Amino acid sequence: MRVGERTFLYDRPPRVAAHASIVGPKESEGPLAAWFDEVSRDDLFGQKTWEMGESEMLRRCVARAMTDADVVPEDAQALFSGDLNDQIIATGFAARALGVPLVGLYGACSTFVEGLVLAAALVSGGYLQNALCAASSHFCTAERQFRFPLEMGTQRPPSAQWTATAAGCALLAAEEGPGLHVTAGTLGRIVDRKIKDANHMGAAMAPAVEATILAHLDDTGAAADDFDLIATGDLGWIGREILLRLLRERGRPLPPEKLVDCGASLFFQEQDTHAGGSGCGCVAAVSCGWLMKRMERGELKRVLLVGSGAMLSPTSTMQAETIPGIAYAARLEVQ
Amino acid sequence: MRVGERTFLYDRPPRVAAHASIVGPKESEGPLAAWFDEVSRDDLFGQKTWEMGESEMLRRCVARAMTDADVVPEDAQALFSGDLNDQIIATGFAARALGVPLVGLYGACSTFVEGLVLAAALVSGGYLQNALCAASSHFCTAERQFRFPLEMGTQRPPSAQWTATAAGCALLAAEEGPGLHVTAGTLGRIVDRKIKDANHMGAAMAPAVEATILAHLDDTGAAADDFDLIATGDLGWIGREILLRLLRERGRPLPPEKLVDCGASLFFQEQDTHAGGSGCGCVAAVSCGWLMKRMERGELKRVLLVGSGAMLSPTSTMQAETIPGIAYAARLEVQ
Repeated sequence: MRVGERTFLYDRPPRVAAHASIVGPKESEGPLAAWFDEVSRDDLFGQKTWEMGESEMLRRCVARAMTDADVVPEDAQALFSGDLNDQIIATGFAARALGVPLVGLYGACSTFVEGLVLAAALVSGGYLQNALCAASSHFCTAERQFRFPLEMGTQRPPSAQWTATAAGCALLAAEEGPGLHVTAGTLGRIVDRKIKDANHMGAAMAPAVEATILAHLDDTGAAADDFDLIATGDLGWIGREILLRLLRERGRPLPPEKLVDCGASLFFQEQDTHAGGSGCGCVAAVSCGWLMKRMERGELKRVLLVGSGAMLSPTSTMQAETIPGIAYAARLEVQ
Repeated sequence: MRVGERTFLYDRPPRVAAHASIVGPKESEGPLAAWFDEVSRDDLFGQKTWEMGESEMLRRCVARAMTDADVVPEDAQALFSGDLNDQIIATGFAARALGVPLVGLYGACSTFVEGLVLAAALVSGGYLQNALCAASSHFCTAERQFRFPLEMGTQRPPSAQWTATAAGCALLAAEEGPGLHVTAGTLGRIVDRKIKDANHMGAAMAPAVEATILAHLDDTGAAADDFDLIATGDLGWIGREILLRLLRERGRPLPPEKLVDCGASLFFQEQDTHAGGSGCGCVAAVSCGWLMKRMERGELKRVLLVGSGAMLSPTSTMQAETIPGIAYAARLEVQ
């Protein structure tokens, strides 16, 4: 069922039957390290290039979710996935190795939540019995593609975020009964407040996150208090402050303790990542590794997961275009 | 309902309430010119860069479909779209201008059909009352991104295809009754037969197209004879021959007169496009402009539209990777 401006209430909310997360070396030294299913000391993941390393990390993560749910690749009905590489090659090559039907997505860092929102509708609607939702990012592939060759050692401004080397995968299944379910989803809409600084993604994305949180609350008639946590991914420290200010100015303030940002949670301040983590894989790994496990432990009952993306490219930046932001939201509930 | 390996039969098949197509200067001199809703002599579409020109072409095409169906942007519930640009910027900026909730997709040249398959499931499942499915491509943006600067005038091998400057958009609506409907869809699966030549996309994609056509027929218990036409997009002339040969060798031959390829149909041989057209926008414009109009005129009753994509990037090519192919299929029927 569709309600309000752009929200789906799933008639038969799919169960998160399994979830998996893998992170790279730097992420394995952060405060959430113990929550991830696999930490790798090798950022090439045994491959010859960073791109194929990212793809292998994603493949391994998806395979792990399938194993945990006792689903063999032949029985996996669809993989909803994307990444930040041009033409989403990490996803394409992972899907080649896995052999699972692919729904290729691009929503920048919102991709994981975009996949959850879509896949849950197809599972709920009876079109899929199961669906894998995944995303990956890699510091080295993103840095050289979007910014500068790594060898240059370019100085980064304080507002810059650090693309996480990480992958996450949630396996949705058409199963009722107790457990963790995706119960509602809100589509994203582009919001562009004319930010041009590609080193200040938090500022570019915060207005889209604000719009999607408010759309979700208004569409479902909910209040922020109905959630144990609103988890954004990834605004970073500065973007999180901007979001709190935007909501306050709108007259819809959010208690700061209700809001966590996946990117701001992934690293210690001392790790020199400036405004915090980012990348498709950050929100995917942090939600699959940390948030979903805390929900299953009974620490959190209802979480609004908001994935945000900056829909720019190096070409649009060079052409002096502003940065369009987008955000999708998925409501996760323990039932 | 899901049947067989990877096919959806839509319980309430959405109606194609409107469709629109726009092409550029070279396409307006081809054999299908009279079928397109708009032909532009300006390949910048009034913008300063080719990328923003492509985005404007896509925006205009989507807006035209909405106007034709009497849907104002505030009532359009979702835009399923993608393009070949890094980070799908043509789509992102078009969605910014339109203000419609966006589902960003990447399936290379299969994107338009990927969108149809997904959107039809969400409309049929009651999650959307309407959905815009669109895609675009532009010769100048693709050529300089995937191959060489245009100014170099690089010689192209005979197997190369010509990226079409084109956009297409179909508006699906939750409407019963007579008219053109999307009645079934088949998800894509990666097939990689180790082709490495990025100037021979037809060869890289034909095996995926073969697999998806056979999956669709087997999943639905249909034969090629049940269709008036199987329309691929875009294998080009050479890829079309390879597909016919693969099906013959498999013992499932397809009568050549049943198979049209959108890319092979878009240009005259004399236009020097070598193996024919390609690009996300080619199959989108040719199906929205030519095939759907022929169906509405009663010339064709049932068409299997198969969109195929090559999931490579310049980076994967430089890293000597082979080219993974994918293909989605949508069954279009006049009821």
